[in-house]
Amino acid sequence: MSNIITPTFQNIINSYDKINKYSHNTPILTSKNINNILNTNILFKCENFQKVGAFKFRGAINSILSLSKKELQKGVATHSSGNHAAALALSAKIVNTKAYIVMPKNAPEIKKQAVKSYGAIITYCEPTLEARETTLNKIVKKTGATFIHPYNNFNVISGQGTVAYEFINKIPDIDIIMAPVGGGGLLSGTSIATKALNKKIKIFGAEPKNADDAYQSFTQKKLIPSDNPITIADGLLTSLGNMTFKIICENVDKILTVHEESIIKAMKLVWERMKIIIEPSSAVPLAAIIENEEMFRNKKIGIILSGGNVDLSNLHYFVKS
Amino acid sequence: MSNIITPTFQNIINSYDKINKYSHNTPILTSKNINNILNTNILFKCENFQKVGAFKFRGAINSILSLSKKELQKGVATHSSGNHAAALALSAKIVNTKAYIVMPKNAPEIKKQAVKSYGAIITYCEPTLEARETTLNKIVKKTGATFIHPYNNFNVISGQGTVAYEFINKIPDIDIIMAPVGGGGLLSGTSIATKALNKKIKIFGAEPKNADDAYQSFTQKKLIPSDNPITIADGLLTSLGNMTFKIICENVDKILTVHEESIIKAMKLVWERMKIIIEPSSAVPLAAIIENEEMFRNKKIGIILSGGNVDLSNLHYFVKS
Repeated sequence: MSNIITPTFQNIINSYDKINKYSHNTPILTSKNINNILNTNILFKCENFQKVGAFKFRGAINSILSLSKKELQKGVATHSSGNHAAALALSAKIVNTKAYIVMPKNAPEIKKQAVKSYGAIITYCEPTLEARETTLNKIVKKTGATFIHPYNNFNVISGQGTVAYEFINKIPDIDIIMAPVGGGGLLSGTSIATKALNKKIKIFGAEPKNADDAYQSFTQKKLIPSDNPITIADGLLTSLGNMTFKIICENVDKILTVHEESIIKAMKLVWERMKIIIEPSSAVPLAAIIENEEMFRNKKIGIILSGGNVDLSNLHYFVKS
Repeated sequence: MSNIITPTFQNIINSYDKINKYSHNTPILTSKNINNILNTNILFKCENFQKVGAFKFRGAINSILSLSKKELQKGVATHSSGNHAAALALSAKIVNTKAYIVMPKNAPEIKKQAVKSYGAIITYCEPTLEARETTLNKIVKKTGATFIHPYNNFNVISGQGTVAYEFINKIPDIDIIMAPVGGGGLLSGTSIATKALNKKIKIFGAEPKNADDAYQSFTQKKLIPSDNPITIADGLLTSLGNMTFKIICENVDKILTVHEESIIKAMKLVWERMKIIIEPSSAVPLAAIIENEEMFRNKKIGIILSGGNVDLSNLHYFVKS
């Protein structure tokens, strides 16, 4: 593990300087209502208002802006059915290169449309990891495009670190910063920026109990991927990679896992009280506060709301809850 | 009609000076996405982020702050199942007086809870206008509380006018300002402030075709109330009063009516592209742009998003649309 090169704080600053003319410096919002209910003081960094509706844009555009001219001519490629695909497609469009996206053929129509609308070249495959990887490898071989991994990638992590960089530069005196953890790109970048800016800030990851590979890997100090997890937090189904695992082990103070009902409760709280749309994955850190009120009482907490891409035709969980 | 005294621009300025330490100066947002889709340039004044989640707070707190000490001691009263009830309840709480709210007993549980949470004294009645008015009259007689009409009221209209006052002071060069019209309090206040600040700005009202009393009254120059209208825009079921009718006839340039499908389409557009929650009534002006793209092409349009109170357990229209 020791020979993996991970981004430094300086890499994150360099990324920020590169991407900030393309990315939004997203607003930081508070809710007196939610603070009163939970006896705490939360600041929400709203990456749901980021381009493509998720922090993923930062890592994607940073990766593309880090390519050589020669690499850029051949385009970029990835397999994803989520926010990374849309982020990479838009980033490629911005610099006028090609994005080859491998998507499972059963991906939701709304996500296919989003990626298509940014002009990406989509290849559909069977909905298995093996089919995705085989299809991607074929495309990379044929086109010479650069594969941009959604999280286990130096420049992606460095780009995601700009969220915390903006956040803590604006609010330096928070006690805890919390981000959801799926593949760990956001949490990794957050942890590097936070530790460098203010060593006193605790760094927490929040994860669905139903997809708790980061918690398992973090506590057992070895990579333990989830096996086909099922959670409403569809952005957190992926497991840590070796790079994000290393960074998280070195920097993160705690990983909290939460129940599905708490995720729905937290999401509903944000929708109803703050009138902003967040996707289930974004609600996981607030769910961790709901489940551990004592731990967070009267603390000043920074939460990264990771994204706001929700399929509005599929909101059955609100009706049930 | 000529003997009705209506607010002047100076009244709106005075209201603003009175209420602005209680109300939020709500943000003005734009969406490149929506502008591209509709070939226009829209600025959204986000009263969904106002206290109680709707512009109604402005008129309610202004009315209460305009009462004499003696009146204040006896409290305020209204009949409403919507945003005005919550707004009056919170405003009364702020100045430490009583709010008597008459609600139909079949009002949604979520709305009863909201009003209750602000400490209002609720009286339930049969769900007819007659029962509401009789019950309210009894309470006013018994308690001496001041009845605050939800829209046909001098101080309420004057308070609602502060939305456009803030909006145009920040963005003086819009071509058109547009607000939804139900009872007409918001549109009335908007029209007075707008005409005074910049005569060149056109003032449009937007209304569901299914509850088009303002359109009918405006074009036929006489008050023609709607008879039990049914629309998804539940904040626009009420009909103009004599005061709002007078002001609207004097100041407003056009009232556009829209289909229910366009309201859903507009609401979905805002939720999906802007990641903010608006209630159906708020979507009516954008629906008018969707239905009349030519009329608004390349214009700079100010839209007032009136509120964001939506029952999340009842979002069936998204599934259908």
